[in-house]
Amino acid sequence: MTHHSDAALDPRAFRRALGNFATGVTVITAATQEGTRVGVTANSFNSVSLEPPLVLWSIDKRSGSYAVFEQAEHFVINILAADQVELSNRFARPSENKFAGIEVDIGVGGAPLFADCAARFQCEKYQQIDGGDHWILIGKVVAFDDLGRAPLVYHQGAYSMVLPYPQLSERVADNSADCARQERLNQNVYYLLTQALRSYQASYQPKQLSTGLRISEARMLLVLDSNARLDMAGLMAEVAMSSREIEEAQETLCRKGFVSCTDGGYHLTAAGERQADVLRDIAAKQQEQVLAAFHDDEVAILKKLLRGIIASAD
Amino acid sequence: MTHHSDAALDPRAFRRALGNFATGVTVITAATQEGTRVGVTANSFNSVSLEPPLVLWSIDKRSGSYAVFEQAEHFVINILAADQVELSNRFARPSENKFAGIEVDIGVGGAPLFADCAARFQCEKYQQIDGGDHWILIGKVVAFDDLGRAPLVYHQGAYSMVLPYPQLSERVADNSADCARQERLNQNVYYLLTQALRSYQASYQPKQLSTGLRISEARMLLVLDSNARLDMAGLMAEVAMSSREIEEAQETLCRKGFVSCTDGGYHLTAAGERQADVLRDIAAKQQEQVLAAFHDDEVAILKKLLRGIIASAD
Repeated sequence: MTHHSDAALDPRAFRRALGNFATGVTVITAATQEGTRVGVTANSFNSVSLEPPLVLWSIDKRSGSYAVFEQAEHFVINILAADQVELSNRFARPSENKFAGIEVDIGVGGAPLFADCAARFQCEKYQQIDGGDHWILIGKVVAFDDLGRAPLVYHQGAYSMVLPYPQLSERVADNSADCARQERLNQNVYYLLTQALRSYQASYQPKQLSTGLRISEARMLLVLDSNARLDMAGLMAEVAMSSREIEEAQETLCRKGFVSCTDGGYHLTAAGERQADVLRDIAAKQQEQVLAAFHDDEVAILKKLLRGIIASAD
Repeated sequence: MTHHSDAALDPRAFRRALGNFATGVTVITAATQEGTRVGVTANSFNSVSLEPPLVLWSIDKRSGSYAVFEQAEHFVINILAADQVELSNRFARPSENKFAGIEVDIGVGGAPLFADCAARFQCEKYQQIDGGDHWILIGKVVAFDDLGRAPLVYHQGAYSMVLPYPQLSERVADNSADCARQERLNQNVYYLLTQALRSYQASYQPKQLSTGLRISEARMLLVLDSNARLDMAGLMAEVAMSSREIEEAQETLCRKGFVSCTDGGYHLTAAGERQADVLRDIAAKQQEQVLAAFHDDEVAILKKLLRGIIASAD
């Protein structure tokens, strides 16, 4: 555990600690009367009030898009679905025409609405509050769409998805109804997959973290190890991390001597390759340990059927 | 997709739509100078500013704990870890002594700090803003702990966990390095579990939603079907949903004639049992379809090994 207080309140450590709070991901859009459109990726969205219906989010005071949000009387909050990582990345970085090639509907005040989100909220600007290096924008919701798709999640700088919580009580079956239910769950492949993944994660992640690397840094090392050299766009496509997190991970990994960057391309140093081997070794040992009790031909069938389940959804 | 605008802005539909934004779960605590301690479960937490370090959250104006937050000059934000569902439930409901039996450290202004969280932020009250039916409280962070544990997540009224995003690009392997990497992933059980669960979810959840039930309502029906009769505490332990969501699901299911409530206990009606059968049938058909290409003895080995992986972590 890392404790920080007053004197040691380093903004980067603070931001990392904040990353422990998982959030959805939104793209918030607005337009001027002349039709200039802006959109920014934000995870600072949250609900405030039901009656009146108020929500809020924060925008960096230095954001190039702020001038439009300041001028516009409306904005739209698009809550991204799990398969909208590319939208999230696109609107997280400054660019001339973020909307190129994206089909949008037009909402209140001309603000763009994306298709296939998890939900969308059309807001009137209600209040703006000074929040240190950000402006807090409170909106009054005038219309919304509930599309209910599985959401994109952001946690510790990396994209994630939602895994349903397993049934809570691991009661000892104390009557025949409990036994019948447990037997039913033991035959339910979806339930077994969920629980198996949870168990695997619980014992694997602490081992990976024991290297002193954050999950995002480990992920980046392993991706670079499989790819001789990647630029920022290639990294974003491979590691499912935001550009800011990639820059930070890259900075940390460079400082540790694991990665070097030349001509805008990232690649592993010899020390980085050794560290990637360590991570791969942890993964291999974990797998051996978890599967130690089974025959090789059973493990081969497990892998074959998992690959089959993956292919069945395509 | 359900679209709502102005005239139709029903608070309940609005709250449900907001539930599409996944969040972590916090318990926020404070104390008076006389030592009265309060704590409330909130998912309205978010970061605002790095310099100065500001965060915010909202509290219902009708909350019985508000008087202490109003009086106190400090509060503590405990970001819950994945295994702290019971803390979340306990602090979500009014009760005489929420802290009974919980060991806490004492933070700034006497506010309780929980052990084994994902992170903790100790705050000075910085500003309070009127936000409709809630107060928005902005805090300046004076100390924090980054414990980095896997977080508890709240989505559509139910508890969830974080599932790491799979590698994004499903590139066609166009060189030998890509082929080697793909072959390595195909042998990696953790990778295969993650992808298999994602595929299974993607095809299963839309079928479950096609019954017109929300995921939380379906979950509750299935739990009640396995348990003759449950009170609220029993339901909370079984379904991994908050008490508010349980009350709403129960109300909806009663209105549809699927559940009835007598003497504080919930049980399925005959129509509810039929609806639970429909859900079970969807689950069974999904499983049959996903596993159609495999022999029964292979499927038996899959289940056996998944149960083995589950047991290996205990």
